[in-house]
Amino acid sequence: MNEQSISFIGSGSVAWHLAPALDNAGFVVKEVYSRNPKHAELLTSRLYQAEVKATLDFSTSSSSIFIIAVTDDAIKTIAQEIILPEDGFLIHTSGSRPLSDLQFAATANIGVLYPLQTFSKQKKVNFKNTPLFIESNNEEATELLQLIGNSISNEVKKIASEERKALHVAAVFASNFTNHLLSISKGILQKNSLEFEWLKPLIQETIQKSMSLEPENAQTGPAKRGDLETLDMHLDFLKEDPQVSEIYQLISQHIIDQYQR
Amino acid sequence: MNEQSISFIGSGSVAWHLAPALDNAGFVVKEVYSRNPKHAELLTSRLYQAEVKATLDFSTSSSSIFIIAVTDDAIKTIAQEIILPEDGFLIHTSGSRPLSDLQFAATANIGVLYPLQTFSKQKKVNFKNTPLFIESNNEEATELLQLIGNSISNEVKKIASEERKALHVAAVFASNFTNHLLSISKGILQKNSLEFEWLKPLIQETIQKSMSLEPENAQTGPAKRGDLETLDMHLDFLKEDPQVSEIYQLISQHIIDQYQR
Repeated sequence: MNEQSISFIGSGSVAWHLAPALDNAGFVVKEVYSRNPKHAELLTSRLYQAEVKATLDFSTSSSSIFIIAVTDDAIKTIAQEIILPEDGFLIHTSGSRPLSDLQFAATANIGVLYPLQTFSKQKKVNFKNTPLFIESNNEEATELLQLIGNSISNEVKKIASEERKALHVAAVFASNFTNHLLSISKGILQKNSLEFEWLKPLIQETIQKSMSLEPENAQTGPAKRGDLETLDMHLDFLKEDPQVSEIYQLISQHIIDQYQR
Repeated sequence: MNEQSISFIGSGSVAWHLAPALDNAGFVVKEVYSRNPKHAELLTSRLYQAEVKATLDFSTSSSSIFIIAVTDDAIKTIAQEIILPEDGFLIHTSGSRPLSDLQFAATANIGVLYPLQTFSKQKKVNFKNTPLFIESNNEEATELLQLIGNSISNEVKKIASEERKALHVAAVFASNFTNHLLSISKGILQKNSLEFEWLKPLIQETIQKSMSLEPENAQTGPAKRGDLETLDMHLDFLKEDPQVSEIYQLISQHIIDQYQR
């Protein structure tokens, strides 16, 4: 039943993990297209029988499923340019782009499969506990999305475009920004010849505590305590880096407004 | 050898965890002073033989070690007001206050024991892997700090006040601010009737990846990709909350400046 063939458009970090996951879950990834053919080739080397596809003309493709995993702003253009076989099912994987981005394609079967996860090529991902959010405009396509999703994850949920956008914004704060704060933190340590390693037990405990108590019950630190003297001292310490200093000020003020009023 | 008695000044979340840890590591916590005697009493109930101390007059105390674990801006005042027995060893636990805050006290033995950790009363802490940063102005006191530190942690390190301050600022970004971003993230989800639970695998993977690849190699998201269309859409989505919107803008800009130039 699962023996359907898939073509990937894109070879970035989402495709890098999603294509092999599906290839190992009963689907067959047949083709990989990428603006950069070398990247496509690298991805095919992770797959059993996939070949590099040089153009977006899939009219004679034996695949029935076409997954666009590219940067958000390229999705519409690809939907307009891609040539699909009859009844080809076109899917994108973006958190923020609506399903309607795919309406430009010459097919009635369109859908979204958004994995709520952070993907870097160097780091293996566990799809089993990664929630997959699906959306489509017809029942048959929804069933196929369920099938695709269930083959790799235990958490497949239907969600509309607007909710998916909210989810994506929340994920940017929880994941992208959190990681960047760790990067800022490491930068401060390095500048002072201190080791990032020392912070790791603190970071782990912070996240564990935030999950188990809920973040609003786990907040600590000078801003939470309303300790203005320490805040001023820290701002003075950061004064040579105006951007980091402004981030410090803004987040601290937001914490003060939430906990001290 | 460890059979020394300790008095605590303060009953906040640091004292809440540190006093029982020392009480179980061969020291005897004899007294707890707090501005709020009820809080002091609650802490003594976590200890074997400690009593509530009503004033800062410890002149007849049988303790030799006095640990101030209060908010940063109260440390100096307490150092000025506290009356210690002869040769009493006075310690504070702050990341940001210098050792010299204790010079106002009538003792030559002063030190700092800063646990690099986040403490909430509701959440047990593992001291064994919590780095403790110590500082003192004489060798004997440093040895005693080593002894105290080693009794509960495997990671005791000497550090000067200025470096400790840098460490604390870095910890604010990595812990306090990170937790607050999770709080903002949860708020966005709740406003849209979505579940914070769904983000937890993403959050865990984000932190694991950041630790294993280092944060600068683990960055993902629209700002990292320079995807301005998505950034604009997110800012539009957040426009009803100017503070959160500004935090989004500022951190995104900082990511763009770091990765897109």
